[in-house]
Parts: sequence; C-alpha cells; structure tokens
Amino acid sequence: MSYFRPSVDAMAGYVPGEQPKPGTPIIKLNTNENPYLPSPNAIAVLKSLDPEWLRRYPDPYANDFRQATSEALNIPKDWIMVGNGSDDMLNVVVRACAEPGRKVVYPMPTYVLYRTLTEIQDADRLEIPYGENNQLPLNELIAAQGAVTFIASPNSPSGHVVAMSDLRQLAANLNGVLVIDEAYVDFAEETALPLVEQFQNVIILRTLSKGYSLAGLRLGFAIAQPHLIRGLFKVRDSYSVDAIATLVGAAAMRDQDYKNECAEKVKRSREKLAIELRQLGFEVWNSQTNFLLTQPPGNAAKIYEALKQQNILVRYFNQPNLDDKLRISVGTDEQNRILITTLSSQL
Amino acid sequence: MSYFRPSVDAMAGYVPGEQPKPGTPIIKLNTNENPYLPSPNAIAVLKSLDPEWLRRYPDPYANDFRQATSEALNIPKDWIMVGNGSDDMLNVVVRACAEPGRKVVYPMPTYVLYRTLTEIQDADRLEIPYGENNQLPLNELIAAQGAVTFIASPNSPSGHVVAMSDLRQLAANLNGVLVIDEAYVDFAEETALPLVEQFQNVIILRTLSKGYSLAGLRLGFAIAQPHLIRGLFKVRDSYSVDAIATLVGAAAMRDQDYKNECAEKVKRSREKLAIELRQLGFEVWNSQTNFLLTQPPGNAAKIYEALKQQNILVRYFNQPNLDDKLRISVGTDEQNRILITTLSSQL
Repeated sequence: MSYFRPSVDAMAGYVPGEQPKPGTPIIKLNTNENPYLPSPNAIAVLKSLDPEWLRRYPDPYANDFRQATSEALNIPKDWIMVGNGSDDMLNVVVRACAEPGRKVVYPMPTYVLYRTLTEIQDADRLEIPYGENNQLPLNELIAAQGAVTFIASPNSPSGHVVAMSDLRQLAANLNGVLVIDEAYVDFAEETALPLVEQFQNVIILRTLSKGYSLAGLRLGFAIAQPHLIRGLFKVRDSYSVDAIATLVGAAAMRDQDYKNECAEKVKRSREKLAIELRQLGFEVWNSQTNFLLTQPPGNAAKIYEALKQQNILVRYFNQPNLDDKLRISVGTDEQNRILITTLSSQL
Repeated sequence: MSYFRPSVDAMAGYVPGEQPKPGTPIIKLNTNENPYLPSPNAIAVLKSLDPEWLRRYPDPYANDFRQATSEALNIPKDWIMVGNGSDDMLNVVVRACAEPGRKVVYPMPTYVLYRTLTEIQDADRLEIPYGENNQLPLNELIAAQGAVTFIASPNSPSGHVVAMSDLRQLAANLNGVLVIDEAYVDFAEETALPLVEQFQNVIILRTLSKGYSLAGLRLGFAIAQPHLIRGLFKVRDSYSVDAIATLVGAAAMRDQDYKNECAEKVKRSREKLAIELRQLGFEVWNSQTNFLLTQPPGNAAKIYEALKQQNILVRYFNQPNLDDKLRISVGTDEQNRILITTLSSQL
C-alpha cells in the first residue's frame, strides 16, 4: 500500500531546467530569464527594506502590488489576484475548476506544467496538436468544452502568438474558463487583455519573471472579472506571496518605461540572433518572446552537450517532435555573440 | 452552471487574521509573530544581496537552505523539503495523499487551514474533539485510519503539547502519514523530531515564521524519510520558494544562538503575562508557544473590539467553544505591559 494517491504514484513529476548559481561562469540561455537586471527602483526598494517586513506576515491581499498593477495596466484592483509566480496561479486555476469529470484542454506542444498540474489533480485531460505553421486547432478546442482551456500566447516553446480572433472565438464558445497565459507578453506585439472586459470566462495570467526580470522573487498575477477572482481566492493560499516580493514587484511595476526599454533591447537582439543562427544553417521560428525555437543543422542533443561543455546552457527537450530542436533564450548581444562564435566552431 | 468545482462553490474560504502595515501604530498580538527582529546575519544578507538573484530563477531544490538546515538540526539533506511557508507544505501533503475515499483526520480545535485544504481537495474529513484538559482522542484517531492525520504540537489555539508517547502510538498504529505540525516548537520544551527516524510514516513540519521571525518571507520545510520526500516533491511547485527567502532563511538557520535567545525571552515574557492576566481575572491555559489562549472575565468579542479601539490587536475566533476566548500573542515586555494597563482600565 502506498502513502500517496494513485495518480501521484503514477506521475513522473516535472523536471525543471538547470539553475546554476549566480557567480557560476555560465551563459544561461535555458530558462528564458531576462538578460537585464530589474529596474533600479526595484533594487533600491530591496536594499532599503525595513526589516519589520521580514518579521511580520505579509498582506494576504498584496494590496500595494495590486494598486501598482491596477495603475500600470489600467484595470480595476478587484480584477487582480496575486500569486507566488504564475505557476502558482496555474495551480490555483486547476484546483478551482478541474477534477475527474471536469476536463483540462490545451493545444500541444506548450508549457509542460499544464500536464503536470492536471495529472496531480487527476482531472481528465485532452491535448490537441497544433496544426502546420502553429495553426490553432480551434474547432477541436471548442468541441472539447474543457472546464479549463489553457492557451499560452505567446506560446512556449514555439514562440508564436495566437490570433486575437481565435482567442475571441474560443472565449465566446467555451462554457468553461479560458486561461490565456501571457508569461511572454512583454516581448510581443499584442495582448489579449481587452478580452477580460468582453468575456466573463477569460483569465489572463502574467508574471514578473520575464519582462520585469524578477524570476528569483516568484511573483505573478491573474486578471479576470471579480466573480472569477472571488472563486480563485478561496483556493489560493492566504500568505502565498511574500512581503518583499510585493514591495519590490510594485516598484518594478511602476517603472514601465524601464521594462519597455529592456524589452525593446531584447527584441532587437532576438531578430539579430535569428539572422545569425539562420546563417549557420539553423531553422529558426518567428518569435514574439525572449527566446527562439530552433532546429540545428545536426544532432540537437549533441549540440546541447557541446555548448554545455563550453559553459553555455540552452534548453533541450527530450520528447517527441522537440528532440531535434533547441530552445535558446535571447541573451545580451555579447552573450549571443559568444553563442554564435561557439556554435560556428562546432558545426 | 458554475465555472468552479462544486466543492469550491460550497466553501466559505479561509479568513486570515488582520495584517496592518509596518509603520501603523498598532501593537499586533493577533497572528503570533515573534516580537523580535530576525537574526542580524539574516538582515545583513538581505541588505547585501546581489541583484542577480532577483533576475534568475531560484534553485528548485533550495540546496543552500537545506544544507544550513541539515547542519543546524543534524538531519540528512535528502530528508528535507522546502516550501513557501509551512502552509504550502500542508497544501502539498493534502494534495499528495488525500482525495475522495482517502480521509484527512485531526483533533479539534486546531489550525483552521487543515479543514480548508481538505475541503478544497474534496477529501473525506473526520474532526475528533479533544477531551477535557486537552486529552488527545488517541483511540478514535487510530480507529479513523486517515490517509493523513494532522497533529499540531504545540497546538493552536490551545498552546498545549501532545505527549511523545501519544505521538509514538499514533505513528505505530496508523497506516497513513502522521503529520506533526511543529510551527511553534521553538517555544516548547520538546520536539517530535526523533520520531522521523523511527517511523517511515511521520512528516514533521517546521516554519521560519515564528521562532526565526521571518513570517514576511514565507519559508517552511518538511522533514521525513526520503521515500516520503520523493513523493511530496512531485506535487510541490518547482519554483515555489524564492531565492531571497532561501538565502536570508539559511542565514537565520545558521544563527541558532540568536533564535534560542529570542525564544527564551519570549518564554519568560509569556509566563509573566500569564500571571498578570490571571490577576485580572482571565483564565489562562498553559502554553508552550508564543501565545496564550485566555478566557476573559467578560464578553470576549467586546474586549477584542475595545482593545482594537486602543490600537491593540488580539485574535478573536467567532466559532463554537472559542467565541468566549481570546488568543493573545506574546509581545515584548513593553507591549505586554501596555496590553495589561489597557485591559485593567477596561475591566
């Protein structure tokens, strides 16, 4: 007899990307961190923090951060729920809405955590493959009528954005919630945020890990109409978001100019890197994120290993349809130059 | 039709204690924070932090913190799992082990979150009342054979410790996991830690929110044999613990002397406060925590409100068997003196 639920025993568990320590002499292009430091205002808040904030429990509603986000994105404060990274928000949505008999649906390939969370919850699951050229399987997604439908847009690992017209059709035709995971939106040309006002079943997820360079802090948030936020709040841990994260995160959120400048730099570097990789014989998909999905002119696993030997980490996925590809986070121009030089000498 | 699971719709949701901001002129004795600041070493780590730690994802295994904890408590590193507060650990245990047909069992009254998490999971639940003088309902707990049995020791809101002999009997006779929630152990005379070595079904939970004065950071951990830790790891969010929390927490963990000194001060203040409250006609239960459960000589709700008017927050539970009582966190001697003076003038 096991101590665990059968569905937990049956799971392999999620394997996170490698996370070497700061200070390690590594060019880290494997988990899509922003190559630039967070806003100087955010760092200043951290350095000048009153230690009383450590001693006391945080505000369970993270009101400071919600206020900053409300002002930055021009949405009402009670349309915002804050979590311990957007992974925590995904967790809360699955636990609030899915169970055996209440299905989770998403197009594939996409963020692997959707599957992991559905397995833990033991909910029914339907994974529908993307078509050629990242065509969204719109009719199949609608026909599936999930209690939860996840769309990452921009998507990982493909880097593509799902058309607003498709998202609108999904929202209008689904009886369950449509979760639009906008983790990478700060590097994209468009946001689905307007859909939250138009549809009572849309939940938008955002994170401060990418655009705001705060992956170490764990801070994400959901945007939805208040009737959805209220239900999600019941499932959320009251103190899931720490006091330091909300204060530092609020300062980052208030400095939209800095975030946008960094995003513009990343986007310029991304286009440059795509050209250089193509010159080396890589197939490179168009991306509206801070990474590129690429198919190298040679064995992907071997190139991944060879780069690792040279202290460059990129992401290799040992799974069908992806094991011939590498996902490469966009670094600084200097980091990208070293990557290209190293690849040139190996191919 | 609802967007949520029926069990979520049926829930009221947990109501956390009031959390006024630092800087508010309030004596906060309602959520059992430590009245002393965290170790100066921990504060120094926060102030000198390399902002690279903000930009990058944290180590998903929190190895620095686990190493510090392994050394401080003399337990192997792979017997430790770190979480986003011990609330997160409770959440992970319930999701790993309980579901419809797999029961959660605990004596009452106790920490309210056990019920909330069980409701969210839609698992079966059995709440067994404590006997006279906090007598553990040992036979009933064993007979119930929960997939998860929660024992908070020291318990909240009563403040009492469950006898080691009772815990040992429980561990030996339960087929499921026995979770001993030691959130308040740093103020107690004994720990159940030795049981982890003796029993393969025991999970001990600890937090840095009380003894280590780091409630604002959200950091807790589980101690259990590796076969249990491995199962729990599958359910845990990979990046649930932020980089700053693990670094600051590790420094606090390495400064056991400071933690113990503060705990001794709190314990002395606790005994003094108990005497003074009794002199005012309060019934005060013996406590091995940093709070006192008390029954005031008058209407508890009214005294709670009157204290609040005077900027003193204590905890009032509007529920059967507790609504004639107040739970009072032990403050500094100065804070306790103001509490006693204020109460004297009101009774």
